[in-house]
Amino acid sequence: MPEPIAAHSIPTPVAPPPDILRCAYMELVVTDLAASRNFYVDVLGLVVTEEDAEAVYLRSIEEFIHHNLVLRQGPVAAVAAFSYRVRSPEELDRAVAFYTELGCEVRRAPEGFTRGIGDSVRVIDPLGFPYEFFYDVQHVERLAWRYDLHTPGALVRLDHFNQVTPDVPRAVKFMEDLGFRVTEDIQDAEGTTYAAWLRRKPTVHDTAMTGGDGPRMHHVAFATHEKHNIIAICDKLGALRLSDRIERGPGRHGVSNAFYLYLRDPDGHRVEIYTQDYWTGDPDNPVVTWDVHDNQRRDWWGNPVVPSWYTEASPVLDLDGVPQPVVARTDTSEMAVTIGADGFSYTRPEDASRAQDDADVLPSWKQGEYKLGHQL
Amino acid sequence: MPEPIAAHSIPTPVAPPPDILRCAYMELVVTDLAASRNFYVDVLGLVVTEEDAEAVYLRSIEEFIHHNLVLRQGPVAAVAAFSYRVRSPEELDRAVAFYTELGCEVRRAPEGFTRGIGDSVRVIDPLGFPYEFFYDVQHVERLAWRYDLHTPGALVRLDHFNQVTPDVPRAVKFMEDLGFRVTEDIQDAEGTTYAAWLRRKPTVHDTAMTGGDGPRMHHVAFATHEKHNIIAICDKLGALRLSDRIERGPGRHGVSNAFYLYLRDPDGHRVEIYTQDYWTGDPDNPVVTWDVHDNQRRDWWGNPVVPSWYTEASPVLDLDGVPQPVVARTDTSEMAVTIGADGFSYTRPEDASRAQDDADVLPSWKQGEYKLGHQL
Amino acid sequence: MPEPIAAHSIPTPVAPPPDILRCAYMELVVTDLAASRNFYVDVLGLVVTEEDAEAVYLRSIEEFIHHNLVLRQGPVAAVAAFSYRVRSPEELDRAVAFYTELGCEVRRAPEGFTRGIGDSVRVIDPLGFPYEFFYDVQHVERLAWRYDLHTPGALVRLDHFNQVTPDVPRAVKFMEDLGFRVTEDIQDAEGTTYAAWLRRKPTVHDTAMTGGDGPRMHHVAFATHEKHNIIAICDKLGALRLSDRIERGPGRHGVSNAFYLYLRDPDGHRVEIYTQDYWTGDPDNPVVTWDVHDNQRRDWWGNPVVPSWYTEASPVLDLDGVPQPVVARTDTSEMAVTIGADGFSYTRPEDASRAQDDADVLPSWKQGEYKLGHQL
Amino acid sequence: MPEPIAAHSIPTPVAPPPDILRCAYMELVVTDLAASRNFYVDVLGLVVTEEDAEAVYLRSIEEFIHHNLVLRQGPVAAVAAFSYRVRSPEELDRAVAFYTELGCEVRRAPEGFTRGIGDSVRVIDPLGFPYEFFYDVQHVERLAWRYDLHTPGALVRLDHFNQVTPDVPRAVKFMEDLGFRVTEDIQDAEGTTYAAWLRRKPTVHDTAMTGGDGPRMHHVAFATHEKHNIIAICDKLGALRLSDRIERGPGRHGVSNAFYLYLRDPDGHRVEIYTQDYWTGDPDNPVVTWDVHDNQRRDWWGNPVVPSWYTEASPVLDLDGVPQPVVARTDTSEMAVTIGADGFSYTRPEDASRAQDDADVLPSWKQGEYKLGHQL
Repeated sequence: MPEPIAAHSIPTPVAPPPDILRCAYMELVVTDLAASRNFYVDVLGLVVTEEDAEAVYLRSIEEFIHHNLVLRQGPVAAVAAFSYRVRSPEELDRAVAFYTELGCEVRRAPEGFTRGIGDSVRVIDPLGFPYEFFYDVQHVERLAWRYDLHTPGALVRLDHFNQVTPDVPRAVKFMEDLGFRVTEDIQDAEGTTYAAWLRRKPTVHDTAMTGGDGPRMHHVAFATHEKHNIIAICDKLGALRLSDRIERGPGRHGVSNAFYLYLRDPDGHRVEIYTQDYWTGDPDNPVVTWDVHDNQRRDWWGNPVVPSWYTEASPVLDLDGVPQPVVARTDTSEMAVTIGADGFSYTRPEDASRAQDDADVLPSWKQGEYKLGHQL
Repeated sequence: MPEPIAAHSIPTPVAPPPDILRCAYMELVVTDLAASRNFYVDVLGLVVTEEDAEAVYLRSIEEFIHHNLVLRQGPVAAVAAFSYRVRSPEELDRAVAFYTELGCEVRRAPEGFTRGIGDSVRVIDPLGFPYEFFYDVQHVERLAWRYDLHTPGALVRLDHFNQVTPDVPRAVKFMEDLGFRVTEDIQDAEGTTYAAWLRRKPTVHDTAMTGGDGPRMHHVAFATHEKHNIIAICDKLGALRLSDRIERGPGRHGVSNAFYLYLRDPDGHRVEIYTQDYWTGDPDNPVVTWDVHDNQRRDWWGNPVVPSWYTEASPVLDLDGVPQPVVARTDTSEMAVTIGADGFSYTRPEDASRAQDDADVLPSWKQGEYKLGHQL
Repeated sequence: MPEPIAAHSIPTPVAPPPDILRCAYMELVVTDLAASRNFYVDVLGLVVTEEDAEAVYLRSIEEFIHHNLVLRQGPVAAVAAFSYRVRSPEELDRAVAFYTELGCEVRRAPEGFTRGIGDSVRVIDPLGFPYEFFYDVQHVERLAWRYDLHTPGALVRLDHFNQVTPDVPRAVKFMEDLGFRVTEDIQDAEGTTYAAWLRRKPTVHDTAMTGGDGPRMHHVAFATHEKHNIIAICDKLGALRLSDRIERGPGRHGVSNAFYLYLRDPDGHRVEIYTQDYWTGDPDNPVVTWDVHDNQRRDWWGNPVVPSWYTEASPVLDLDGVPQPVVARTDTSEMAVTIGADGFSYTRPEDASRAQDDADVLPSWKQGEYKLGHQL
Repeated sequence: MPEPIAAHSIPTPVAPPPDILRCAYMELVVTDLAASRNFYVDVLGLVVTEEDAEAVYLRSIEEFIHHNLVLRQGPVAAVAAFSYRVRSPEELDRAVAFYTELGCEVRRAPEGFTRGIGDSVRVIDPLGFPYEFFYDVQHVERLAWRYDLHTPGALVRLDHFNQVTPDVPRAVKFMEDLGFRVTEDIQDAEGTTYAAWLRRKPTVHDTAMTGGDGPRMHHVAFATHEKHNIIAICDKLGALRLSDRIERGPGRHGVSNAFYLYLRDPDGHRVEIYTQDYWTGDPDNPVVTWDVHDNQRRDWWGNPVVPSWYTEASPVLDLDGVPQPVVARTDTSEMAVTIGADGFSYTRPEDASRAQDDADVLPSWKQGEYKLGHQL
């Protein structure tokens, strides 16, 4: 039986949500812009649309809008915005009304918050994440046909975001109010949801909600055309003696059925490379629910998930650039956390002895002790 | 300068069009059901959802609706329906109103025209094509994770249709009224459109309009995940000594940027295998216009297009199963046809000496002389 | 400084070695023939050349000789023969003379030890391994062009064997006397060799010597054409809910530069799937020596090696079918074994605290405690 | 019945042939060194080992010897040497004796004929081709692991040469005397050989003999790892608007079973890109004989062969750099040439009406009219 959605749930606004088209870009704060530029441009092959001393604007090979990733120099590695494109300029008014009704902080920038983008709205959503919405954007050359510029590991599209949040059912309910649909999720026998994949565009997701102390950013994902492109990225990292940037994979996901790889950038921000999920655009698209005890849900080949993948994530910023405080995963009776012998946290005490790869709740984040990043 | 859309244009209905989700299936009439089943099931690996003495219902690996292709035994090889899924059951009423206002023949089958599908509408559209719309459909297992059943050339999705019509600008204008958007087209310096790709789902197309005597069906296309899957189909056809079923390719399209292969089934119906076009779902997605003289537009590698690809296509049926008469490509001053030394028809006399691969108008179809099919 | 090759080294025979062409087949004793047949035929797609109640003879897609693998029902999972093809029938006399001079047990079967093979010699070599040599063999259809029979994970060639032996330098010296050449090896700063790859045919190896308690068989390897073929095997195992058969990988080797996957068969015999190493056929082919501390030597992407890969291996049989006793890795001063906190054995005490993936010596095999196999 | 090998056959020398290891490099004379360098380096990604004003020395990614291709500026596009590596320095003496006995012109250069190579022998062989043999060579870095330098279409090995000669059976007999073995050939029902594939290293070939006016060079072939690498080359040529460099393919060969592509360099020299043939190293490796009427022998998918592929080839030079005269394909009764309506020459009059793709004899080369090269 699913847990009751109680007083802690976010009310559904009367105002309709903005019509969101797709995840469009992430703004990442990085502590060493040159190092990050090297990683995303020289290693991963993202294309520089524009850059200056403070920021680099990058896009994927098949993109025609100004950017899919902004790297901005800053004092602490964090996420400044999860940005979505909406279907028309008018949707920005809807975004303002929707979040204002929820009591969220809302700011509008008629000239845009970044280069290349016009009228935009940024909010801190009820889950604590900095979300952006925009329609106006500068068009740039779609490099799909420019095979002379493609690398063996060419990244062709921004595919999705992944967010860490302490109460997944609460987050899912809110995202559904925002117009997202669940395509897949992970549950236990009691119907508790440990993670959910949510889409606007007709792929498996534009974003996912992963249970853990939050708000934090788990990863941003780019797509390649084929599996060998992902392997080529690993091979290149090996050649550059940067194999430590490979955190997990490559492998095949159970959830989404995609072939994947997880990397960590110089600041520890996690980047997924992803290919070949499936069409989900029908209104009655069947939701796939995975058992949290199914060890093929996270990796179809049963390969174990490295602990850092469960424990580490990036802070997110408020609209003034201050890191958002992280709320511990809620300890209602359904969601209580027990630390297992493996160092992982579990929602049910009896689960604490389960193997690591049964863990789908990120362990409790200890304020003060948390150190973002992977030892590179 | 584009040709004027004159008296011959189809008026825009006052009634709004149905909200079409995606191309969903084609109903093909075949003259030897066993031979066709062998081709689509044993050779191409489509999955049989259901079958009886008169028909076989097939789906692709990642499909969750009952079928993407119906093979129905009949006296003449032809297309009985281009079928689209709409966003909700209510859209069928809109379809009825839209086509009724246009004076089209409209039929509704509350129990569906084929197995596995419920309430449906079929029409003969103003261009002469049998179109179907439905929402209700039986769900079946999505075999995406059933890798034990996948073949080296696994077809994972129905991707698109392609229609032959004598007046492409007229057809495009009508399809735009129906809610489609152009993603790419082929034009000459005067702005005459020779072919256009039109989408509802956010890929390059759900259907395309190719200039030629029509209405006829040029091809139906299925997608694979990777390029090697398409090569595997060619290799298997070679091993089965069925290489004559390969009509054109494999190659890389200029238009759509997809990797492709064209096959001919036992009746001569053309099937494309297709992979890796790009996202087109933004409202301001840039339209790519190719010059009809650019020999990389049809094949990015400049390989010539075999004449049969331009000359042959399948008849389409009316709602009583009678082949639709074929209208010759219109000979207005903009669209006059001259037969070149190469047997191709050209819209401008001075083009008649151009090389074959500049031809993007199908040659005039001679009633009585036309023989569907490829010598297999 | 390399360790001295002392009294324990095997003397070089006066008799010349047989001219070995390539590794040709392995004879595996399996405890459940039906289960093994299912794994190698139904899951991996090897082709049955012939079979009876006691044995199944299998070959890879591009092979033209009778078999590359014999599965023989028996009481204990073990290896009955590492079999090599020689260049001519006369080489068998040389094999007899060579091993006889070394005091080895030598048997000759003019009708062959298995079906499909004629005059053959089997020996227990000075390292304790059952080796076979043959020239006469029945030819069968090479299925290279039979793409109608290929599966997504088609195994096209037998590539190599891998043997576990307690004294790698001693084994290498002997194999060089037998006419093999080292292509790559793993050494520490003192020049101690932990593992070596040895070839007759011009690939990286026909067999490799891995340090550990021996004689045991580490793995037998089959090649695919491309990397996606290996991924397809993983995906199929996932679909069959046999993901536990995946022990390690897929990944990219440092040594050999090949893309790899390790599986465990129903008896725990290890099978590698392998693709894309390089030409080594020049007499002055450069030997690549990897530092035992280089964590990219075993996996180019730095992914850790699962402990079972270091600890488990298959017994080998003597010529009467009795398992060979296993000799503990020698404890000369150069080769002393210290058990690290990680459960691994190390040759130098100071290494015992090193991370697991620095281990290239298999831990001491404890007679009586050893249980072949992976928990499936 | 095979044609008698008559007085025109080349006598078998008493002197043994040199032990040839593999085809090693081709020396190409090019008329515009900068244009050729651009093609082979910037487009195809071969690696520059060394260069000066007159020549560029190139190697493939997995090569460890100084070069696989020399581009040398000269007045006429031609081939200066087909160069093979032999197994030891002593083999050069054998080469001298072997060709001297045959009355061939033989020159020896103790310092080598090109940079990076030591003691070498060049001859004009009895078929009129400039052949080189060497053992001493400078080692350079094998870039196999340098994935940071690999391109999407990375060429990893020199695979083979292909030579045009008027009397294929005569050429095959001579090459067998030189120690080569036939792996595949094309014959008609009378046993006339139209083309043959010959190997030293255990792949399908180090060189092939194609029937036509000769001596001429048909192509030089480099290998990739996978099929998508070949497609990437086509895509890049399209992006660079160099699609006219693609002469034939990509496709699957019947002969060799390899996936292939034929390009023409700026001088019209033909380059094949090739991947995935099979092991041929067993002494009793089965020879595959294809029927000249089998339209899948040249392309497994039955795609027609473009006429230029049959008609055009590069001149070869004598040891003084003068183009060798071309001998018309011999008109013995077995080999008489009839010109078909298709412009092709046929050995039997009754074949002259056959379709183009039955042609496996290159048409008569008309002195004075012949223009090397493809219209680029």
